[in-house]
Amino acid sequence: MPSQTDLAGPTEPRIVISVDAMGGDRGPSAVVAGIAQSAAKNPDIRFILHGPQDQLERLVARRKSLADRCEIRHADGVVTMGEKPSHVMRHGKGTSMWSAIESVREGEATVCVSCGNTGALMALSMVRLRKLPGVNRPAIACLWPSRNSGGFNVMLDVGADIRADEQDLLQFALMGASYARNGLGLKQPRIGLLNVGTEEHKGRAELKVAHDLIAAAAPTSDFEFVGFVEGGDIPSARVDVIVTDGFTGNVALKTAEGTAKLISELLRAAFKFSPLSRIAAVLAYTSLRRLSKRIDPRRVNGGIFLGLNGTVIKSHGSADATGVSAAIKLAFQLAQTGFAERLAARVASASGPRQDEALNEAESERKE
Amino acid sequence: MPSQTDLAGPTEPRIVISVDAMGGDRGPSAVVAGIAQSAAKNPDIRFILHGPQDQLERLVARRKSLADRCEIRHADGVVTMGEKPSHVMRHGKGTSMWSAIESVREGEATVCVSCGNTGALMALSMVRLRKLPGVNRPAIACLWPSRNSGGFNVMLDVGADIRADEQDLLQFALMGASYARNGLGLKQPRIGLLNVGTEEHKGRAELKVAHDLIAAAAPTSDFEFVGFVEGGDIPSARVDVIVTDGFTGNVALKTAEGTAKLISELLRAAFKFSPLSRIAAVLAYTSLRRLSKRIDPRRVNGGIFLGLNGTVIKSHGSADATGVSAAIKLAFQLAQTGFAERLAARVASASGPRQDEALNEAESERKE
Repeated sequence: MPSQTDLAGPTEPRIVISVDAMGGDRGPSAVVAGIAQSAAKNPDIRFILHGPQDQLERLVARRKSLADRCEIRHADGVVTMGEKPSHVMRHGKGTSMWSAIESVREGEATVCVSCGNTGALMALSMVRLRKLPGVNRPAIACLWPSRNSGGFNVMLDVGADIRADEQDLLQFALMGASYARNGLGLKQPRIGLLNVGTEEHKGRAELKVAHDLIAAAAPTSDFEFVGFVEGGDIPSARVDVIVTDGFTGNVALKTAEGTAKLISELLRAAFKFSPLSRIAAVLAYTSLRRLSKRIDPRRVNGGIFLGLNGTVIKSHGSADATGVSAAIKLAFQLAQTGFAERLAARVASASGPRQDEALNEAESERKE
Repeated sequence: MPSQTDLAGPTEPRIVISVDAMGGDRGPSAVVAGIAQSAAKNPDIRFILHGPQDQLERLVARRKSLADRCEIRHADGVVTMGEKPSHVMRHGKGTSMWSAIESVREGEATVCVSCGNTGALMALSMVRLRKLPGVNRPAIACLWPSRNSGGFNVMLDVGADIRADEQDLLQFALMGASYARNGLGLKQPRIGLLNVGTEEHKGRAELKVAHDLIAAAAPTSDFEFVGFVEGGDIPSARVDVIVTDGFTGNVALKTAEGTAKLISELLRAAFKFSPLSRIAAVLAYTSLRRLSKRIDPRRVNGGIFLGLNGTVIKSHGSADATGVSAAIKLAFQLAQTGFAERLAARVASASGPRQDEALNEAESERKE
């Protein structure tokens, strides 16, 4: 079945990204600036932009790089940050977010990008795109600054749901591995399961079962299972993908962001402390900028929803043009590799007889 | 009932701390150096030191500040870092760790300090000291660098157990508040309950019930309840004590430590990058040292076990003399305020009829 992601040649149909222009903290001008940046760098990309027609037309008209490459799809409504997902699910029709997801549903675009309300985006994506066959709980995966040569690890779930049983954790491992292959270009990603210790007897019951399930699935699923990892291993080079439930993942993500923010505040204060340290700050400027770019949350931008019929990327609510452009770049890369189809195939093959086998093996091993 | 913690006057019985000399990564010499530091600063402190008599006698003899202030209690065995808690519980008699806890059990010392295996220390403390009446699950509380004027918040449970129900979370709130009053000197500590969002409808079922239970207990328990907090709020100035289950708390703690370590590595690399940045590092030396002292894990040393008949402080396994001395300082402060008795009184009063009332109120409110 040919799709927009089949690049038959350099002059073939370009990749189309569906973009929700509204709902971010900085409004549609930041979003349009971001897609214009991406368009200027990448000739193979096109956009469908969702939001109020008049306003978007004015913003797009000012960007040369977007000429003839950005179709505007009118939508009056905006999903705000404070709205409850359940409310948006019932009343969200007519919003730019709904419309942006619809373009992926209809097959006009390969990936949807939004800076809006995460819970609402997940709820609408679930309702409109539906879960992949074989997936019980979709997950949000994020990129985590790490010591690996690529600079990032993948962590999931960071907040799609507040729980996950052993089967969900196995699916997270499969989906995370697929994302690492297609999004980070790793052939044989190393998967770790987050726990409070690395010894096999530690942790909750469902983690012990998940440990055995993932270990059993590894040989046939092109990933390596490194076993349990701890919070301190999330940025380590001994693992590429960290699997956990959405409650723990969300707390860990926000704790890490909070820690980084505290340290950078203390660092700034330290550099202001004395005349000497102020001079030092000037001398170290370039190096410190390189560091802050490395751990810049805008570049770690783009949580991705895994487990749906279609790919949805959640950009930070506060994303500026650079942040939006980073999310678009990820969207393009995933569209180009045919990620959605590959992920679906992975999950389907694993949830067939092979997974049952793995489960049976794991269970009989436990009983031994 | 008079006890060693009643300081009737400056010449009254000194406070006795029971110290496990063995089991830390740096061996007994670091522990002896640490207690010698504390003894030199604080004339009101005495020690019972547990471990191999000959070895300890030699180490103590070299320290003038310990003359006549340190009794050695011989113990042959050592609990190693890799030993399973269940094994230590059955076979731990005769180890320095067991002996150190025994001194608190017998009332010879007020607080026990150990750098050894956390799980084993918790298991032995549970078995030998037993849980306080009214406490179902003891917890480990740690100090977390924060924006508060004191420099630290309290977080619990960071790993005594892997789960906590709503009643446990209420007890953690009461115990955490008591620790903040006696350990940090806060009259009316502000308690937050860790969740994935601050809205009341978010999170797991037991968290919603715990939210109502803690809110109902606040008016009669000398703390303020600020409601749900997120991972990013752990170091914030809007809260003093963060309550969570031991799985989430342990992951958050290790994630924060891992993040701080990654940033400090990147920072060090940034300062080595160019000749200019190397000069900058020299100029900024004093300010950066001040910062690294602020977030130094040795100073955040001392997880404390709450909910037992007696106080046990777990020092970092890698603690050096400075780290041990910091844990001793905390032990002294808690002994001096009569912390163990106050905590017991708090928990007892809250687990009586008053708590049942709070529970009933909370439940009837939920049903409305």
